[in-house]
Formats: sequence, C-alpha cells, structure tokens
Amino acid sequence: MKLKRSGRMVDLTTYLLQHPHQLIPLSYFVERYESAKSSISEDLAIIKEHFEQYGYGRIITVPGAAGGVKFLPGISEKEAEHIISALVEQLEDPSRILPGGYLYVTDIIGNPHLVNQLGRLFASSFSSRKIDVVMTIATKGIPLAYAVAAHLNVPVVIVRSDSRVTEGSTVSINYVSGSTKRIQTMALARRSIKQGANVLIIDDFMKAGGTIKGMISIISEFQANLAGIGVLVEAQEVSERLVDDYVSLARLSEVNERENRIEVTPGNYFQDKGE
Amino acid sequence: MKLKRSGRMVDLTTYLLQHPHQLIPLSYFVERYESAKSSISEDLAIIKEHFEQYGYGRIITVPGAAGGVKFLPGISEKEAEHIISALVEQLEDPSRILPGGYLYVTDIIGNPHLVNQLGRLFASSFSSRKIDVVMTIATKGIPLAYAVAAHLNVPVVIVRSDSRVTEGSTVSINYVSGSTKRIQTMALARRSIKQGANVLIIDDFMKAGGTIKGMISIISEFQANLAGIGVLVEAQEVSERLVDDYVSLARLSEVNERENRIEVTPGNYFQDKGE
Repeated sequence: MKLKRSGRMVDLTTYLLQHPHQLIPLSYFVERYESAKSSISEDLAIIKEHFEQYGYGRIITVPGAAGGVKFLPGISEKEAEHIISALVEQLEDPSRILPGGYLYVTDIIGNPHLVNQLGRLFASSFSSRKIDVVMTIATKGIPLAYAVAAHLNVPVVIVRSDSRVTEGSTVSINYVSGSTKRIQTMALARRSIKQGANVLIIDDFMKAGGTIKGMISIISEFQANLAGIGVLVEAQEVSERLVDDYVSLARLSEVNERENRIEVTPGNYFQDKGE
Repeated sequence: MKLKRSGRMVDLTTYLLQHPHQLIPLSYFVERYESAKSSISEDLAIIKEHFEQYGYGRIITVPGAAGGVKFLPGISEKEAEHIISALVEQLEDPSRILPGGYLYVTDIIGNPHLVNQLGRLFASSFSSRKIDVVMTIATKGIPLAYAVAAHLNVPVVIVRSDSRVTEGSTVSINYVSGSTKRIQTMALARRSIKQGANVLIIDDFMKAGGTIKGMISIISEFQANLAGIGVLVEAQEVSERLVDDYVSLARLSEVNERENRIEVTPGNYFQDKGE
C-alpha cells in the first residue's frame, strides 16, 4: 500500500530490525510502499544516520543490479560498557556462591532481554567475519547462542553430551575436560553442519577450555572451519589455557567460598574489538 | 538530542520493538528527543496505525501520571497462517523420519528467525494473560521458550531431567511419562520461581502430555499458578491425553516409517485464538 514518509519510516525500521544480515533489494521496498526508488533511498539515509547515532548498528548499501540494503546489528561503545559493567556487578553478588565454589547464574541466563543484549555484543564483535552457523553445547550456552545467531541471521547447532535418537545419526568424539582431566563424550547430529561451513562457538563459561577444545575437534571432524569463539564468563586462575583466541565479556578472578566474596572484572571484549 | 519527526520515528519504533510489554512514560521520550509531549503523542499515533496495519502488534496508551505507552507484540492472521502452513510443509518432508518413528526437527528448531516468528505467535496468543515467567524443559524446548519470553518480557526457567550442582538447591519430582509409562525425574532450581507466580509452559513436542503434567506438578510444588501451555507439535494418535487446555501450532497425525510418509496438519492455534 502507498505510504507517506513517516509511515515508511516505521515499517522500514521494523523490517530492517527483523531481517539482520540479509541483503534486501530496494525494489522490494519500492513495491511494498508504492514509492519511488529515490524516496526509499532518502528514507534509508535517514534510518542509517539514526541507527549509527544511537548505536543500533550499520546499514550497508550494495550498488548494482544484484544490490540492495543490509542491516548489520551493532552496539555503541557506551552501551557495551554499560551492559558489561552491569553484568560484572550482578556476577559479584556473593549470594551466587554455591557449594564447591560454583556460581549461580541461572537468573542472568534466564533474562531474555539481557541475553539479547549480550547476543548483540557478540554479533557486533564478530560482524565482519564470515559465519555460517553458531555452535554451542547443551544446556546453559543455548540461550546466548540463539541470541547471537538471531543477530547474525544464521542457524544454531547444539552439541550434546549424550546422543539422542531424535537427532538421527551423530558424530561423537571423546575429549578431556581441562579442569577435571576426565574423559567425556560429545555428539552432534550428522546432518547439522555442512563441510566447509564457518562455525562460531558460543558458550556461557570457560575454565581451562577443554569443552571448547572438544567443540573445535567436532568442527574438524565435520571438515568445517572455526570462525571464532565467544564466552560469557572466563575463569582467570587457570594454569594452562587450552584455547587462545576468544572474546569474553566477564572474567572471574576469584570465588572465595570462605570469605563469601567474588571478584569479577570485564573480559577481553574491548581489547578484541578493533581486530 | 533534538530530533525531527522522521528521526523520532526511527528511534521510537526501534525502542518500542526492543522493549515489549513494558510501560514507558511519555516523559522519557520527551527528554530523549527534546520534543513536546504533543509531538510524541502524534508520533505514537502514526506508529500505532502502522503497527496494526502490518500486524506487528498493538500499542496501548495508559493515561494519567503513572501512565505511558506499551507495545504488545502481535501477528496478523495472514502472517500466522503463512508461518504455520510453512511449518506444516517443512514437517511433512519424509526425510525427517528417523528409526523408531521419531522425527528430525533439529534444523527447524535451529533456525533463529523461524523460532522468533513462532515465539511471536505464542506471545500474541497469550498476550492478554498475566504471565510472570516462561517454563520449559531441557533441551529442545529452550529456544522456543526464550523466543516467547522475549516477546512477553519475562524470564525463562529451565526444568532439567538431572539436578546439577550449578543450580544450587533444587526441587525434584517424579512423574510418569505418558507414552512409555516409565517413572522419570525432573528438577528445578529452588530460587527460580516465586510463590504465586503465573507460569506459561512452552515445549517443542507433546504426545500424551506426561512431561507437561510433570511441569504442572513442579508449578504446584512452588505454589505458583499455571497460566497457559503452548506446544510446537502435538501428536494426534493418543489414547488418553493428560492435558486439555493448550495451544499447538502443528499436529502430527501419522508417521508411517514403512511407507515413508508423514501427515501433519495445523494445530489448534486458530481455534484458541479468540479466547
């Protein structure tokens, strides 16, 4: 239907937000709004300006017959700092300490608005890399992996510690947990990753990195490529880290069960931002 | 910063989409855009009109000093039909049949854009009910539960079939699986649901309903209330259904392993829509 500029602004903004990392030909909008291409281009220039101003992300215009417009979700430095410092503060609450020095983070991972923001942080951080699929391991990494994948417009695959009949045939590997040194198994449905796919690993927690190393082995087993690693929280006091190149949002330096104290600092997110 | 109408349209639309089911005072936008309240009201009227026209959802204005504006995500009848018929068609692909008559749905659940749309369907269906938290059971229901919860702006709790140390103390119950008649256990972190909370159950699959009945028992164990049940796929050929009042998107009437044939029809979504 024919729309005026203000109406086009509402729908164009909504449409772009709902279709991130997807090239949309301008002709699609010309038809949708029964408006001239030049008007749509002007609309997009205004949206681009405000998206950048508010840090919602970038709008890229690809010229030519096969061209169009693409929205890449992003986040402003200020908002990223705000989210990460709020995360650090929440993690430092001593009531999170569980017996054995574990941390209760179920409520943080259970908040879809927060998870969505954390997903935007990672998607923004990896937006210039070629990513075909996001991989995580059941259970706690799943929400964050979906949030990242939604912003990157790619599918998610979930590695499991048991192989289920409902997955069809699976590829399994044995790996050594970095901290407990125990041999464990992980499995992934054979149909889930194509050869040559670029895989971004997302997980909620990394200690020595054994689980992530296991996922990297699964990726090679499928003859796919590792495109990046993102973890919500990394533990600092690790003698030998099995994984080097990753982006973390928070770093757990100490969990002192006796003194009921947790020390958390921001992760390496801002250091890796420029690459 | 001071913005013109077209700029306000971009940011207001984005802001509302990112903050569903949340009452935002008009004064917030007055400050954000350094604009008169009357201009903001006019902006909102335009957004409201286009959101309703395109079926993105409703915008509700609450008058008075404690009032403001609230966005309730929705979906047009036409888009809902389109999504459900595409889902049914995807499910009918005979290559999904696994040994034992199980179905491969990992790719459907692994598509964040689709999962997000399915979440909008459920959120729209339950938007008039009072919901404080979405509950699901690990693993396959998690993505859908998050999508629904994001559109309703409430947290998610994940019931597990094993109790993990990282959850702190848990409440466990035994339940009887409706189809296999075996006794199983499910557990939920004690901190995760408050007494009196209104809980929406979301799961990917329901056969006889034993698992969902188990989740209902957990809800009473926490002295909370059942606010609704939504399932992605229900199996039709069930002698005795343990659960009555639910919303389903698709119904599996037959999985014929020998003839390599699946029959799927739309679920009861449209029948329940009016309630």
